[in-house]
Amino acid sequence: MNAKFQAPMIIVNFKTYSEATGKRAVELAKKAEKVSMVTKVYVGVAPQFTDIEAVAKAVNIPVFAQHIDPIRPGSYTGHVLAESVKEAGATGTLINHSERQLKLSDINEAISIAHEKSLLSVVCANDPSISAAVAILKPDVIAIEPPELIGTGIPVSKAKPEVVTGTIKLVREVNPTVTVLCGAGITNGEDVSAALKLGSQGVLVASGVVKAKDPYRVLREFAEATRQ
Amino acid sequence: MNAKFQAPMIIVNFKTYSEATGKRAVELAKKAEKVSMVTKVYVGVAPQFTDIEAVAKAVNIPVFAQHIDPIRPGSYTGHVLAESVKEAGATGTLINHSERQLKLSDINEAISIAHEKSLLSVVCANDPSISAAVAILKPDVIAIEPPELIGTGIPVSKAKPEVVTGTIKLVREVNPTVTVLCGAGITNGEDVSAALKLGSQGVLVASGVVKAKDPYRVLREFAEATRQ
Amino acid sequence: MNAKFQAPMIIVNFKTYSEATGKRAVELAKKAEKVSMVTKVYVGVAPQFTDIEAVAKAVNIPVFAQHIDPIRPGSYTGHVLAESVKEAGATGTLINHSERQLKLSDINEAISIAHEKSLLSVVCANDPSISAAVAILKPDVIAIEPPELIGTGIPVSKAKPEVVTGTIKLVREVNPTVTVLCGAGITNGEDVSAALKLGSQGVLVASGVVKAKDPYRVLREFAEATRQ
Amino acid sequence: MNAKFQAPMIIVNFKTYSEATGKRAVELAKKAEKVSMVTKVYVGVAPQFTDIEAVAKAVNIPVFAQHIDPIRPGSYTGHVLAESVKEAGATGTLINHSERQLKLSDINEAISIAHEKSLLSVVCANDPSISAAVAILKPDVIAIEPPELIGTGIPVSKAKPEVVTGTIKLVREVNPTVTVLCGAGITNGEDVSAALKLGSQGVLVASGVVKAKDPYRVLREFAEATRQ
Repeated sequence: MNAKFQAPMIIVNFKTYSEATGKRAVELAKKAEKVSMVTKVYVGVAPQFTDIEAVAKAVNIPVFAQHIDPIRPGSYTGHVLAESVKEAGATGTLINHSERQLKLSDINEAISIAHEKSLLSVVCANDPSISAAVAILKPDVIAIEPPELIGTGIPVSKAKPEVVTGTIKLVREVNPTVTVLCGAGITNGEDVSAALKLGSQGVLVASGVVKAKDPYRVLREFAEATRQ
Repeated sequence: MNAKFQAPMIIVNFKTYSEATGKRAVELAKKAEKVSMVTKVYVGVAPQFTDIEAVAKAVNIPVFAQHIDPIRPGSYTGHVLAESVKEAGATGTLINHSERQLKLSDINEAISIAHEKSLLSVVCANDPSISAAVAILKPDVIAIEPPELIGTGIPVSKAKPEVVTGTIKLVREVNPTVTVLCGAGITNGEDVSAALKLGSQGVLVASGVVKAKDPYRVLREFAEATRQ
Repeated sequence: MNAKFQAPMIIVNFKTYSEATGKRAVELAKKAEKVSMVTKVYVGVAPQFTDIEAVAKAVNIPVFAQHIDPIRPGSYTGHVLAESVKEAGATGTLINHSERQLKLSDINEAISIAHEKSLLSVVCANDPSISAAVAILKPDVIAIEPPELIGTGIPVSKAKPEVVTGTIKLVREVNPTVTVLCGAGITNGEDVSAALKLGSQGVLVASGVVKAKDPYRVLREFAEATRQ
Repeated sequence: MNAKFQAPMIIVNFKTYSEATGKRAVELAKKAEKVSMVTKVYVGVAPQFTDIEAVAKAVNIPVFAQHIDPIRPGSYTGHVLAESVKEAGATGTLINHSERQLKLSDINEAISIAHEKSLLSVVCANDPSISAAVAILKPDVIAIEPPELIGTGIPVSKAKPEVVTGTIKLVREVNPTVTVLCGAGITNGEDVSAALKLGSQGVLVASGVVKAKDPYRVLREFAEATRQ
């Protein structure tokens, strides 16, 4: 899998959830791969750093790091090097997730480094104007997630549709080609459909899938909703 | 390998060096394992997060994470969970390396979490009084590294012997059992011998081994020096 | 006022409360001064950086900065220099408040710099072992505040007496002379008495005074409680 | 002085230099005021937090904080509140100086808060695309400073003219009205003239003035250079 990608897309963020750590990360990734194969929808997974290699070996869908540091090889004990996640099998990386935010100059540097290493850059943003600011920096994908909705089960596509449409409008003024995802609170297919109708090209999801009783069923519902 | 350990000990920090990333991390770990087998000296390795699993599968020597975050499972995208490094095969972790320093309360929490998960905690400190403060928090190991000597090739055991002896004295007053390592600038067996003569129970090394022309030879020299 | 101090002591942290910003900081400091004069109890105030000079000119009680950065004069735009708070009239500084925590090595450096500049160092800590670790670094005062009680009105001296006694026990083992304060949730004189009976030498208070309907009355009650 | 401003403008950042701390901050600000009166050029000064009030009382030129935190009144011990710097007499604030960088969402929030409080927002940026990203967030002023030139005496306007012109071009595409300053290494009037010829509307200066043998003379030369 190279860094090419297609919309609509779904990325499942495994966070540091118990349900998606170690062996369970691999199992969940296999379910995501099955959904992708059955539905022909682009489904990526973002496991923890330590699980990237095992996940990437087990599945043929795109694997994302949850973060990279804005560094090149050197003396950076405990940091996350783009080369390392790439060699472990990642095809992309989240950057600036609301739970792992970066200084503006570090976002810019991380995007540059991801680009150099052919890692797909998915930069998270909190609101429309921040998304537009990020769009200037030319990442491959922007994921807009209102932080107050993350993990609530209240879908951004319904609770704050104007955030999605406002983001897309502002982003398009400065960057006509970047892919825009939205996330936060997405728990069923209807939320996904709503997100796409508002103009987004996919979703970034986490607890809605990872903590579901039947992650395969939920993720398949999400994937099918993107095709309507 | 469980979290038991013995002195004298050598831990090789792979940092984010190109020479110790991905496949090269595994190769270097195998050399470290060979040194350990030949010399019967405790040699541990600290690869990047993404390389922990492959390294732990390839060798039977202790593997350390370079850092853990003071978190439990949950919504911490891009952070490093003790459970994850443990499940990937780590038997311990560095904490508060001078290149990845933590708030004091986070050091305390990370040590507690490491202890709960039976991960050996190796807490780095910059000077004698900081080492003694860390000793109060009851980690398994303290590694004292004067940051101004890291990567210089000027060995702490020769340039600043009083830092090593001062550290050990202060640490022993508050914690008689913690293992004390020293590091920074160690490049040959003589530096290692000097460190042990000053009262330390081992060394934390990085570029001196990782960037050596013949890492096996250098590390073997270090290991043999611990036995004199 | 120089950096000398006496127990029992009360320090009122103004935080960034509206009720204690600008002119209201000066007014509140005058009330604290009046309490100190009437009761002969040591009462210090910790206003925001911008208010230090006006407060220090208006009153003759000790004034504390809420934080200093571990820096010396140089290129540190937006940071807080010990020299500056000193010249503005502060006689001491809080360090590592739970709302402004520092890396361990920075706490150590900030204490050293405060000492050099004859600023009284009041280092905050979250629990007994962290307090003991701080005690090793030889600040003038340690203030123990369980963060889960800050601003709750549930007094540490009643809800968690073992935190106070445990702290004092551990601290005394490594540092027999440091002054120990406790804080969090203190709202009446009884809470203050309880804190002193547990062995602390004073209190660090904030909302209990600053947000009281009659700060003078409350603070006077606190001060009188220290003398029983 | 309200938050209105005019180009060309010069802002002198006092950093945490000894030469511009306490009384010397007031003296330097008076020299800046004299330059402004004599030349009719807009000259602002950015002293340390503790010096804002004394400087603002002593002079009638605009005074800037060096930083504000993205907070509103509340429990933020040791942080810098917009209300506080405003009440102390500041008419604006630097945000995201390269020595005090913020997360992207915090830059956005700090700009909003500055706007609410009628504080002029001067956001610093490191390179052209970061400047354009900042321009999306609608600050009043952007100051571009290549960090590798800060404090070197090598003027950005000569060493990296393409940074200045590139910044202005990119910024203007997304924000036609924001004022653009440039800084780093500016030491004489010729550097200032060069900066303005490249299209910037003023300069942000620091050591070139503060550490000059005769700050008045140098600053006057700068001011006169803006009028040619």
